[in-house]
Amino acid sequence: MPRYRLDIEYDGGPYAGWQRQDGPRTVQEAIELAIKAFSGETVSIRAAGRTDAGVHATAQVAHVDLTKAWRADTVRDALNAHLQLAGDRISVLAARPVPDDFDARFSATGRRYLYRILNRRSPPALERGKVWWVPKRLDADAMHVAAQRLTGRHDFTTFRSAQCQADSPVRTLDRLDVTRSGDFIEIRAAARSFLHNQVRSMVGSLKRVGDGAWRADDLAAALEARDRAACGQVAPPDGLYLVGVTYGGDDDSPTSD
Amino acid sequence: MPRYRLDIEYDGGPYAGWQRQDGPRTVQEAIELAIKAFSGETVSIRAAGRTDAGVHATAQVAHVDLTKAWRADTVRDALNAHLQLAGDRISVLAARPVPDDFDARFSATGRRYLYRILNRRSPPALERGKVWWVPKRLDADAMHVAAQRLTGRHDFTTFRSAQCQADSPVRTLDRLDVTRSGDFIEIRAAARSFLHNQVRSMVGSLKRVGDGAWRADDLAAALEARDRAACGQVAPPDGLYLVGVTYGGDDDSPTSD
Repeated sequence: MPRYRLDIEYDGGPYAGWQRQDGPRTVQEAIELAIKAFSGETVSIRAAGRTDAGVHATAQVAHVDLTKAWRADTVRDALNAHLQLAGDRISVLAARPVPDDFDARFSATGRRYLYRILNRRSPPALERGKVWWVPKRLDADAMHVAAQRLTGRHDFTTFRSAQCQADSPVRTLDRLDVTRSGDFIEIRAAARSFLHNQVRSMVGSLKRVGDGAWRADDLAAALEARDRAACGQVAPPDGLYLVGVTYGGDDDSPTSD
Repeated sequence: MPRYRLDIEYDGGPYAGWQRQDGPRTVQEAIELAIKAFSGETVSIRAAGRTDAGVHATAQVAHVDLTKAWRADTVRDALNAHLQLAGDRISVLAARPVPDDFDARFSATGRRYLYRILNRRSPPALERGKVWWVPKRLDADAMHVAAQRLTGRHDFTTFRSAQCQADSPVRTLDRLDVTRSGDFIEIRAAARSFLHNQVRSMVGSLKRVGDGAWRADDLAAALEARDRAACGQVAPPDGLYLVGVTYGGDDDSPTSD
């Protein structure tokens, strides 16, 4: 039974997150329906990151088993044709055959997220729904310095959702970089895996550092507290993008065509 | 009567272009309604570029006369509040008092446009409505070389809409640069002024060069023909952005706050 890896871009705005559920449309459901439409097969696909409602992806990775061995390019193009027909804001960047032991979720050895803040007085017009709009000027340098207090191996209880189902709150944060580019502040986070709402919780607290409400020590104390109540505001989903998944030792970015 | 310059960003997707008309909502109308809502005044505003339906702007410039001398920041913030309330995808980046002889349209000495092509096999998800999707691989270098045949002072009859109301088809094209950045091809055009549909007409013909249907000589011949029928496809509005307007000798970019 041939297994395919799918690299996927989506606008999370119209969806109730990745994971299939009763009720509003999800990204997983939309792709499974497109697979059904082109192959006739009812499948369940698994992804590297179960993104929340409103969260975007430039490089989500999923895998699917199909009965028939289609050409990989045919899988990509047929899925895109059906996704377009359905009006979905989802695009399959690449499809390729993978070994049976490749699991998009459990084989992943790294995830990378980007969080984008639009930091200007005027609201976004072109980037609405794609950024967190923060009108008050933020000190990106101070945010970056403080962010380094969160890297490494820690108990991230403060920065995980009360709904988080992970067995352990301990994670190793490999990278948390904050840079300014004009009116945009970009926060890049990398780890083997993240807790539920971890990036948005860290970003919300970093924003407090950026606007002067917290010093770096306050951020470190929040981490130390291991208490969800010590977390600042959880940043909205609009600014969050899953931008990369690593398998094995490679930084395995998608290639189209 | 105080005159204000407004620097404006908008997503052209939901609008029937800049200019007020009977029927569907336009950018001009939305801003005039916001001015009415905050000041009580019924005004008519004039812009540097009368962008078509679906065309975007990061730096449109308009001017408006108000009876009362408001603080410029109040004008900006009040307009943004009312535009947000109305659900408009328009943001006033800056408002500032200008002399009575400043005219957003007639004082402008230069306009700059950016055209964005997404050149990959898979359709856009995050950038839908914000790019022209061209699946077939384009040679951006060949497009750039050919584009130089269009710069300078020419009769651009081939590259203007049949509806163009300009007295003369002669324009001086200062710049037409084509660059590739990953899957994106960016085309930057600068001139004192452009004919109706000129940028989209030039881009549509450059695309023919990029996909190998035309050589640079064919593009030059199309210009020489001074015949609308010699033009390639007119590129869709989705990829076009008004990104700058110059007044006097300065490159006068907006400042927020």
